[in-house]
Amino acid sequence: MNDQAARNDGETRSEVRAKAMLAGTAARRMASLATEEKNAALLTMAEALKAEAVSLIEANRDDLERGRANGTSESLLDRLMLNEERIASIADALRLVAELPDPTGKVLETIERPNGLRIEKVSVPLGVIGIVYEARPNVTVDAAALCLKTGNAVVLRGGSAALSTNKRIAEVLRGALERTALPPDALQVIEDASRSSVDEMLKLNGLLDVIIPRGGRSLIDNVVRNATVPVIETGAGVCHTYIDASADAVMAEEIALNAKVQRPSVCNSMETLILHEDFARQRLRALADRLLERGVELRGDERALALVPEAKSASEEDYGTEYNDYILNIKVVNGLGEAAAHIAKFGTKHSECIVTEDDENAVRFLNEIDAAAVYHNASTRFTDGCEFGFGAEIGISTQKLHARGPMGLPALTSSKYRIYGNGQVRP
Amino acid sequence: MNDQAARNDGETRSEVRAKAMLAGTAARRMASLATEEKNAALLTMAEALKAEAVSLIEANRDDLERGRANGTSESLLDRLMLNEERIASIADALRLVAELPDPTGKVLETIERPNGLRIEKVSVPLGVIGIVYEARPNVTVDAAALCLKTGNAVVLRGGSAALSTNKRIAEVLRGALERTALPPDALQVIEDASRSSVDEMLKLNGLLDVIIPRGGRSLIDNVVRNATVPVIETGAGVCHTYIDASADAVMAEEIALNAKVQRPSVCNSMETLILHEDFARQRLRALADRLLERGVELRGDERALALVPEAKSASEEDYGTEYNDYILNIKVVNGLGEAAAHIAKFGTKHSECIVTEDDENAVRFLNEIDAAAVYHNASTRFTDGCEFGFGAEIGISTQKLHARGPMGLPALTSSKYRIYGNGQVRP
Repeated sequence: MNDQAARNDGETRSEVRAKAMLAGTAARRMASLATEEKNAALLTMAEALKAEAVSLIEANRDDLERGRANGTSESLLDRLMLNEERIASIADALRLVAELPDPTGKVLETIERPNGLRIEKVSVPLGVIGIVYEARPNVTVDAAALCLKTGNAVVLRGGSAALSTNKRIAEVLRGALERTALPPDALQVIEDASRSSVDEMLKLNGLLDVIIPRGGRSLIDNVVRNATVPVIETGAGVCHTYIDASADAVMAEEIALNAKVQRPSVCNSMETLILHEDFARQRLRALADRLLERGVELRGDERALALVPEAKSASEEDYGTEYNDYILNIKVVNGLGEAAAHIAKFGTKHSECIVTEDDENAVRFLNEIDAAAVYHNASTRFTDGCEFGFGAEIGISTQKLHARGPMGLPALTSSKYRIYGNGQVRP
Repeated sequence: MNDQAARNDGETRSEVRAKAMLAGTAARRMASLATEEKNAALLTMAEALKAEAVSLIEANRDDLERGRANGTSESLLDRLMLNEERIASIADALRLVAELPDPTGKVLETIERPNGLRIEKVSVPLGVIGIVYEARPNVTVDAAALCLKTGNAVVLRGGSAALSTNKRIAEVLRGALERTALPPDALQVIEDASRSSVDEMLKLNGLLDVIIPRGGRSLIDNVVRNATVPVIETGAGVCHTYIDASADAVMAEEIALNAKVQRPSVCNSMETLILHEDFARQRLRALADRLLERGVELRGDERALALVPEAKSASEEDYGTEYNDYILNIKVVNGLGEAAAHIAKFGTKHSECIVTEDDENAVRFLNEIDAAAVYHNASTRFTDGCEFGFGAEIGISTQKLHARGPMGLPALTSSKYRIYGNGQVRP
């Protein structure tokens, strides 16, 4: 490492660490705020965003110009782009978070012991939450709102493509917090856009209580594989729909079509359709036509190809790929056992569906398939915090610790035990 | 790396990975077992241990002899030692686990959605649990019992000092499982006693759902700092007792004495006593005499030393040390704020106590102190699964994700969402 690199490295370390420490101090104050104070702050933040729309759009223009100069794709530029309307909708989202119930400070459990001790398990904020994400400015506001609502401090590290926008958002929101009961230091935006700032966050044990990655697979994998700070893994979804022999044909086709084409770019959309051979023989041809009509490229196993010869042959790699696109694997099986084995091998434990009129098979599928969400006769597209009635979502956990599936506000809390005695000692 | 090292390294990888994969296959079967089948298996395991006492003691003798030859301390040898009585008590512990309620398969929450979807959140096993621990053979049995009871498979990696004992325990318990509904592969003992087998476990993302370290600080730190598999951090406790100005003097002294000397070697014992200056002036001398009488070495700040001149001066390092021994730091403060600041700086977020008759101070302490367990007028020694009424304990979590404080059987479960529809698709 040369001197300049060493200096840069030193500066990186100090920005991330310094901001995490400021967040830690703020977190202690955050934990004792009243719900009303937090809600009022969210409304003030919403107002500030709308009032500063012009300067936000200006900062955003820098990012867009830089992106264009770097040859960024139009679809990514669109995700990055802010205009008055989008800013208004981001501000509205803040107001919705303010209206949600506060999950902290609840007595979750009370235990009375024979020795007279009364033990209360109470929900409390997690502390300092790190969010590592890509170039969507709305995530900056959204993640901040959810973390602050739950009494946490947050350290945000967004993608370099949105750096100017995120810096300006941080200025506006921290400025707004100055006029509230919340410490502005509860909201930290990392400005170092180099890889090393992420690397450093991943190892900040003791300063960050959890890191939540939001973004594509490579971002998530990098966080999961390198973090020693506790992580909530979110996202990747290779989701299956299994149509059983007894399925209602109309229902099955509507569910399969919806799971694939209603919004193929998201994690809860279907990547592989598994059909019982009896169903396939009678209905696959018609279903395939509907999928082809909607522009879906089909890849099948041998038995599917026999029925839909225009499909390509599906490879093992295809079965493990989250396409997030108008592409679908089709596999024909001789029953639930073979379907379950395929899902166990290729699924990412996100969302899996069985369409069947056979209750025994439904129960078996729902019990035996190991996934965050298992469906009987409904589209996997419902795996979503808002669709579950949570009002907001910080992500969809595909791991088993702490939270699994769509994560609403309670996923951003921990608990502590409060023990009330009158002099009890251990004999 | 020479050939031999490479070969050893290759073998290591294959033992750990192969056993984790066998455990994964067994985990799928474990998840659908009935509570009665799991309980029956625990009783069979208990019988087998008693029936094989002679061969267990023989294997244990190898470990003891090797330990003696290596100059292992008598106290460690005592922890390692098995005799008929200890085996009987380990077998009894298995029977107690069989009697506990099964926390899996419970509907934790039901959500009815306007579109007719019914969403159930159900408790399920975590999957495959890795346990990394030291040389106590009872942990091998105990951890296995708790994991199997909750429908999990377990990969146990105990210390090399207990290797012969653990191998024999595994043979006996796996042999017992052959006669039950449980797959013997749900119980795996790693025989490679080299450091590299632990290193490999820590990176087995996708094969292990969680790793729980049990042991001393260096073992826990190694796991936390190097694991990319989700970890539940357990253990380290630098616990404080703060005696407020208004404290009942007799109660305060009994609590302080109990927290220090009832069992100094455990994580929930007190390492630092913090006293309000008014209380210290009137009572510290007498309390110090009682502590000295019990053989406690005292280390104090300047104000404590003025009242107890025979104490040594406490360093910053002392305040951060988990002595697990008859040593106590004493600090005198001007009030709750100074006490809380000291705890925030040196505490490990394990167990903290205030002794006070002032309810306002009690509430402030219980709300503001960030720890797994916060006590009003009771000894920190109660932070323990059995004392909390959980019936068993896999450890005490000092992190905030998933579980915090004493972990009973529910800490070894995750959840999944079962969604029941009648053809719902996302509009």
